[in-house]
Amino acid sequence: MIVRLSPSAPATTLDALLHSAAAAGLEGRPMPDGRGGMLVGVDGALTNDVLDLPGIAAVHLTHKPYMMASREHRAPSVVRVGDVEIGSDRPVLMAGPCVVEGRAELLEAARAVRAAGADILRGGAFKPRTSPYAFQGLGIEGLRLLAEAREATGMPVVTEVMEPDQVDIVAQYADMLQVGSRNMANFPLLRRVGATNRPVLLKRGFAATVEEWLMSAEYILASGNSDVVLCERGVRGFDPILRFTLDLNAVPLAKELTHLPVIVDPSHGTGRRSLVEPMALAGLAAGADGLIVEVHQTPDRAKCDANQTVTPAVLARIHRKGLALRAALRDDVDVAAHVERTLVVAD
Amino acid sequence: MIVRLSPSAPATTLDALLHSAAAAGLEGRPMPDGRGGMLVGVDGALTNDVLDLPGIAAVHLTHKPYMMASREHRAPSVVRVGDVEIGSDRPVLMAGPCVVEGRAELLEAARAVRAAGADILRGGAFKPRTSPYAFQGLGIEGLRLLAEAREATGMPVVTEVMEPDQVDIVAQYADMLQVGSRNMANFPLLRRVGATNRPVLLKRGFAATVEEWLMSAEYILASGNSDVVLCERGVRGFDPILRFTLDLNAVPLAKELTHLPVIVDPSHGTGRRSLVEPMALAGLAAGADGLIVEVHQTPDRAKCDANQTVTPAVLARIHRKGLALRAALRDDVDVAAHVERTLVVAD
Amino acid sequence: MIVRLSPSAPATTLDALLHSAAAAGLEGRPMPDGRGGMLVGVDGALTNDVLDLPGIAAVHLTHKPYMMASREHRAPSVVRVGDVEIGSDRPVLMAGPCVVEGRAELLEAARAVRAAGADILRGGAFKPRTSPYAFQGLGIEGLRLLAEAREATGMPVVTEVMEPDQVDIVAQYADMLQVGSRNMANFPLLRRVGATNRPVLLKRGFAATVEEWLMSAEYILASGNSDVVLCERGVRGFDPILRFTLDLNAVPLAKELTHLPVIVDPSHGTGRRSLVEPMALAGLAAGADGLIVEVHQTPDRAKCDANQTVTPAVLARIHRKGLALRAALRDDVDVAAHVERTLVVAD
Amino acid sequence: MIVRLSPSAPATTLDALLHSAAAAGLEGRPMPDGRGGMLVGVDGALTNDVLDLPGIAAVHLTHKPYMMASREHRAPSVVRVGDVEIGSDRPVLMAGPCVVEGRAELLEAARAVRAAGADILRGGAFKPRTSPYAFQGLGIEGLRLLAEAREATGMPVVTEVMEPDQVDIVAQYADMLQVGSRNMANFPLLRRVGATNRPVLLKRGFAATVEEWLMSAEYILASGNSDVVLCERGVRGFDPILRFTLDLNAVPLAKELTHLPVIVDPSHGTGRRSLVEPMALAGLAAGADGLIVEVHQTPDRAKCDANQTVTPAVLARIHRKGLALRAALRDDVDVAAHVERTLVVAD
Repeated sequence: MIVRLSPSAPATTLDALLHSAAAAGLEGRPMPDGRGGMLVGVDGALTNDVLDLPGIAAVHLTHKPYMMASREHRAPSVVRVGDVEIGSDRPVLMAGPCVVEGRAELLEAARAVRAAGADILRGGAFKPRTSPYAFQGLGIEGLRLLAEAREATGMPVVTEVMEPDQVDIVAQYADMLQVGSRNMANFPLLRRVGATNRPVLLKRGFAATVEEWLMSAEYILASGNSDVVLCERGVRGFDPILRFTLDLNAVPLAKELTHLPVIVDPSHGTGRRSLVEPMALAGLAAGADGLIVEVHQTPDRAKCDANQTVTPAVLARIHRKGLALRAALRDDVDVAAHVERTLVVAD
Repeated sequence: MIVRLSPSAPATTLDALLHSAAAAGLEGRPMPDGRGGMLVGVDGALTNDVLDLPGIAAVHLTHKPYMMASREHRAPSVVRVGDVEIGSDRPVLMAGPCVVEGRAELLEAARAVRAAGADILRGGAFKPRTSPYAFQGLGIEGLRLLAEAREATGMPVVTEVMEPDQVDIVAQYADMLQVGSRNMANFPLLRRVGATNRPVLLKRGFAATVEEWLMSAEYILASGNSDVVLCERGVRGFDPILRFTLDLNAVPLAKELTHLPVIVDPSHGTGRRSLVEPMALAGLAAGADGLIVEVHQTPDRAKCDANQTVTPAVLARIHRKGLALRAALRDDVDVAAHVERTLVVAD
Repeated sequence: MIVRLSPSAPATTLDALLHSAAAAGLEGRPMPDGRGGMLVGVDGALTNDVLDLPGIAAVHLTHKPYMMASREHRAPSVVRVGDVEIGSDRPVLMAGPCVVEGRAELLEAARAVRAAGADILRGGAFKPRTSPYAFQGLGIEGLRLLAEAREATGMPVVTEVMEPDQVDIVAQYADMLQVGSRNMANFPLLRRVGATNRPVLLKRGFAATVEEWLMSAEYILASGNSDVVLCERGVRGFDPILRFTLDLNAVPLAKELTHLPVIVDPSHGTGRRSLVEPMALAGLAAGADGLIVEVHQTPDRAKCDANQTVTPAVLARIHRKGLALRAALRDDVDVAAHVERTLVVAD
Repeated sequence: MIVRLSPSAPATTLDALLHSAAAAGLEGRPMPDGRGGMLVGVDGALTNDVLDLPGIAAVHLTHKPYMMASREHRAPSVVRVGDVEIGSDRPVLMAGPCVVEGRAELLEAARAVRAAGADILRGGAFKPRTSPYAFQGLGIEGLRLLAEAREATGMPVVTEVMEPDQVDIVAQYADMLQVGSRNMANFPLLRRVGATNRPVLLKRGFAATVEEWLMSAEYILASGNSDVVLCERGVRGFDPILRFTLDLNAVPLAKELTHLPVIVDPSHGTGRRSLVEPMALAGLAAGADGLIVEVHQTPDRAKCDANQTVTPAVLARIHRKGLALRAALRDDVDVAAHVERTLVVAD
């Protein structure tokens, strides 16, 4: 049951609704509707007398199981990371090395991606590795270097957190907490990042349905943190030519089902350097609110994910083309004229 | 083995190579390299004395198993259907109803998609249906109506052929022969369409690897028909929310591996009307040479595939936005200035 | 609508039902229910007056779309190939080389698999190959050799047919027609084998759902041929370590949904020699009515599918263990005592 | 590099090897080879002088990346849970409710599965649920009830642990720690259970390759815990008719690649009650060392997983048939005679 309160509803109505839900043993969750009013999601049915309170504009009996993440009755959300807005009209670019390798390397990389147009710096301090014998990241030292790179470039920082006990220390250094694909259904971790005040980048599990992904977002939202950004990063497919199959269908589909912003990771999503640029552009054309890209000065020397890492020059081209593409789609009238003009020349 | 002949190689060299291959029991295939020279693919190794002939520019010992479809040593191909070029700079739009339903409906649909920007008319006369009891198309009557619609609109016509014995009659009416996803590995059918002089639209099998798809194209090319266009139309995925998962990774990947043009079918590829437009645009951003879209005046009354069919108005928007998008990507300098201008306004 | 006729129903009732269906433009299909009565499937609804005829025992308004293949109201079917019954209590063993390589090789292989317990000889004369340049089988000469091997060993022969125009010639030589995985949805071919009086082995498409597989069987049944055996042969999975993923779930599931017999192909189903024996036994434990296994005297020299081919000795072990396993499952009481005895010894 | 020590190698050799590995910055892991000798796995190459030590029987330069889990140079392992041996000749049966619902229900269920032949009691105290609003288990109270059920029936207990901080408390009550499918790549959790002295049941991630699964086992082994049992529990497939696709290929494949025992979960693996029995038997025929089955007195009233839960009567039949099947496969000679006898009667 979702109860809509009018903007003028008295505070006592909200209190009474939450109280009634609790008394009935139900979960009740207040949430802004993004249009000035409030919604109260209730995981069950309240009695009619409660629903007679002043300021109740509507009662919807059925809704998606991810009642807080659902687009129903909601405007799209904008999530703010430092000064950067994700979900507004302008697509956001996150970029940086797979893993923080050292101070000099990171600072150089950060400056390079900044110059290429990046808004947010990515980099792994704690790395989930398939092999227990592989390099697992610099840990807290990596977090410190990320913070230093933020000071040097002005970009906010996103980095992965792998277990509940790491959340506090990562949240101390990072501006945004990343939950990786392998942890999308790590429910204790979701609850724990949901209890912080840091925005969360929730990657889709590589074999998760879109609705399971939204249920994982719901864990974070239901724990009190409303700043969740979804990230499509490739699913497991049957063709061994690619490490993963970037599923761009998930972008318009998720945006149809949820009010949360959605970005795309063409690096992990394909595992192949030559596909990063075209799939990044395709993600933006499909409606993504941004990209996250693995970048290294000399990709072949990257300590991990070398095959899917691009240079700062490629990032700059993605940035420039991405903005052009979105401007063309957004600004139909102006561009239409422009197109006519260029087509006359081209054809 | 691939042998490159210089543009000035004498005709006797080509003859001698093919003769030597045949004498050795090997398949030998001449093919233009798209840059003025010739290549001869040989499915095995010729002896050194043959390779000493005048005009042989280079000999490549290893190559992809799809030697005629491979991009190695080749320029991208352009396939001509009537007056329409597929694979040139301008993306091509194929559109029309899933199935030819009747004369009046088809003519109306053809005029509507033409007005919306379509270059080629699609429509099913022979329909593969999962159920033996479902409507299987109008057959030859459908072919006649398609030909009439071509006369009325000037658009060439593409339609599916399902079995070897139908190839002649379909080729008599249609400008392009479509091999459907379920028939991608129907090798007798591939050989048969390869023996015609009609261009072929080869849909990817919905569980075929990209290299299997290219091997199927190779069957057509090796049978003597060099006019093959590939079409990504969605693969089978694990999320039941979509009928198919449009695999846009296949677009830049195929274009990296083959010289053949590649188009995208966002209708079958998603099975969901709301995804057709964003995935069509994403396909163009990923580098597709065109689109094929199911369109009906009143999609909910379409005799098949209603859930994935869009209106002519949506097609017109795809056309307009698609051209704008490609112009933006192509014309970096001009658009860059334009983008700066619109971004100043928008942000 | 499915109409059940009692065993004593007059012939005029069946005639009247079929006539009424035809008059209403509906498909009407008579079928034995396997228990002495008849069913009439109608792809739509007949009027009540027709349903008042003498001898009509019941009318079922809803049913599966594969009304002839469905298990609803039917006893399991037994399909006879020569003297061999498929679907009876005793599992059937089909075995032989991937492809007919020559006279001596085939006769030796046929005698070896016969000695190892095979009931039916398999072998490819027309082979679907991914590459147009690969060996495509001996064709009609292969059919003649198969017929000769039948004479020599007494085993009936199953072999693949790839296109409608081949059906007559293959049916002339073979006892059972195989429709391969890549042709499961080749509807013209299904109709054509449905018009013969030869039993058909219908392999599951490697990305077909179980219900799509049954719809393909329905094409054959609806064309007049009631002797269809289903074969699970592996689906496409995400783990590149195996060529295919044998989906044994499909065995009990299909047997729950259809009256048709179901066998298992552990050779194509895994693509890995070491897995053929355990997966063959697992298939029988899951309830399969038989197996089809690729066997070669010297598997590493087989002209195709070498990696998944086993020796006659392995086949003999599969046969012996398979019978023991099924006897143990069938004969609960006897074996229970036996088990107690052997367990006392073993533990 | 894997170094084999002969049974008579002096302890100083082992010490020296481990010391040299550490000095070189390499991981060195001693492991019994299951045949009386020792192996030392080194994640890199030691110098030749070290490899000249007395008692070194062989040096293998290349090996699988999961060097401790690998079958190379090892005998199969037996893992002991209480008095129950997993990996010996007799298949082990784990059974119980999806989730501990209450004291009376659990004790009744435990006695029922014990009477039906179960060796180990399963039951969830901490439950991973897709929805944050679903029942999440009784937690520590559930652990206490499981311990009580162990006292009442004599069966050891296996239950899931979801996060590192829960490991100590779960290990205090349970005899075996289960790592669920969604946590297969939760590396901090794997390290943490690897630091206990409790055997671990490691479920395969539902989209994990077999080698990724073994790498996850390697995390536990490399953390010092050698008692790992693998469990195949179904992977994500493309056919929506089943919740998951039980991948029995993984059983013989894993047993070929690792010395660890492998069991099968036909309940989660299919999600369909009617498939539990045939797929359980198929799992045993494929070579599984045991089964884990969800059982409830009245499955339709189970608080979770009702659709895949069977009654104690079905469990008893699985037990009886499973033993008969394995006896038949094991005891070839005796059963062969018996089979002949029963076949004479049956046919």
